Amino acid sequence: MIRRKDDVRPDRPGRLFLVGIGPGGPLDRTRRAQEAIAASDCVVGYTRYVELVADLTAGKETIATGMTREEERCRLALERVKEGKTVSLISSGDPGIYGMAGLVLQLAAAGGAAEIPIEIVPGVTAASALAARLGAPLMCDFATLSLSDLLVPWETIRGRLEAVAAADLVVALYNPRSRKRTRQLDEAAEIFGRHRPGTTPVGIGTAVGTPEERILLSDLDHFREHPIAMRSIVIIGNRSSCRIAEWFVTPRGYGV
Amino acid sequence: MIRRKDDVRPDRPGRLFLVGIGPGGPLDRTRRAQEAIAASDCVVGYTRYVELVADLTAGKETIATGMTREEERCRLALERVKEGKTVSLISSGDPGIYGMAGLVLQLAAAGGAAEIPIEIVPGVTAASALAARLGAPLMCDFATLSLSDLLVPWETIRGRLEAVAAADLVVALYNPRSRKRTRQLDEAAEIFGRHRPGTTPVGIGTAVGTPEERILLSDLDHFREHPIAMRSIVIIGNRSSCRIAEWFVTPRGYGV
Repeated sequence: MIRRKDDVRPDRPGRLFLVGIGPGGPLDRTRRAQEAIAASDCVVGYTRYVELVADLTAGKETIATGMTREEERCRLALERVKEGKTVSLISSGDPGIYGMAGLVLQLAAAGGAAEIPIEIVPGVTAASALAARLGAPLMCDFATLSLSDLLVPWETIRGRLEAVAAADLVVALYNPRSRKRTRQLDEAAEIFGRHRPGTTPVGIGTAVGTPEERILLSDLDHFREHPIAMRSIVIIGNRSSCRIAEWFVTPRGYGV
Repeated sequence: MIRRKDDVRPDRPGRLFLVGIGPGGPLDRTRRAQEAIAASDCVVGYTRYVELVADLTAGKETIATGMTREEERCRLALERVKEGKTVSLISSGDPGIYGMAGLVLQLAAAGGAAEIPIEIVPGVTAASALAARLGAPLMCDFATLSLSDLLVPWETIRGRLEAVAAADLVVALYNPRSRKRTRQLDEAAEIFGRHRPGTTPVGIGTAVGTPEERILLSDLDHFREHPIAMRSIVIIGNRSSCRIAEWFVTPRGYGV
């Protein structure tokens, strides 16, 4: 099966854009994301993300709902599209990385809406945004794991942590900790501690790309002493990762 | 160590931007990338990438060099900055993912240029761009691996392929094949074939986001029958990945 290239077409009504708005601020959005929102009658998203695109939504219907209301947001967006509206359903970062893309495609197909035109607009994912602030921690092979066991059993996640730690992959941890869920990050630290020295650089970014941004560079032995919450991303280096000046770098074999 | 937020400051001369231009076209660039290039006296990059930002470089010095000249490009960029110029060194996708960020930071420190102001401007990485065209293959945990053994020993890469395949992680393969290097992709397919059914979806994107874009959806048993080259990215699903309508989706536990 071969896909055709299908750019943003503001002239086609009744379509759904799944838009990644990047880490937060207007500077880190793509023009495709801006044009998709500009072309939409209605913008749907988690409350904080709808606020982050407030500069683009004047005169548009906006539907903002709270955390864990993902399925409701998808259904509301699909309903609007069926009414002939053009809708942007927004995710922070990239909609395809712990965003809304998968759920929407599942719901569209399950609800007999497989024929509605859907375009996914990629964005700068949080791991890239944090990496850019830290230096170059992701220069070599890496894994992206979520520590949330709401949708994936903890046993599966723990197995992945073990495999990634043993294979000396850098790791970007999404959803590292929440108010109620703190044990997972401790277990992850313990697993990586068995495979990497305690001096391995660990970067923490919270609310990256927003005015509340907080970036910290620590190490495997100490990083849990710092504030880490739902809006944080944690990047753990591999056995080659090091500090170069103030940067966190994973060298990729260049003999410099 | 705590980093301060440091946005693009066109008023500060003599600095270096490491700019991710995203997958290719102007629509997929961030505004931060555009502003960094606009604020620069000089734009340095691989020939094809410099061409991709030609709409932004009128009146600027441009330095375009060929493949494998990464170190030369970094040195030229650093020299210009030392002369007081503001320089954008561009990477396709994200500069922190198989881009130029690591090498520049290493060279800057080695050359006694650790004090020059460097800002890394993240971009949409090729895996996100391809995922958006395919559906939602990266919705669950995934790994990003390069099959190029120019800078990393093949034994290390093969060990990572084994670990990732066994841990049921989706994988995005960068540099899957070149004219001279074909064996690595065959070995990767063989490794994944031992852990996942032959019907596992595999997406191939070549020159994603450019006018020559080619997107293909195949499966583990058949994907190597299609053209795959240096400019391709290959995404291999996990044991839950499936086709939903025409999309490649890795469901994330939502009971739809």
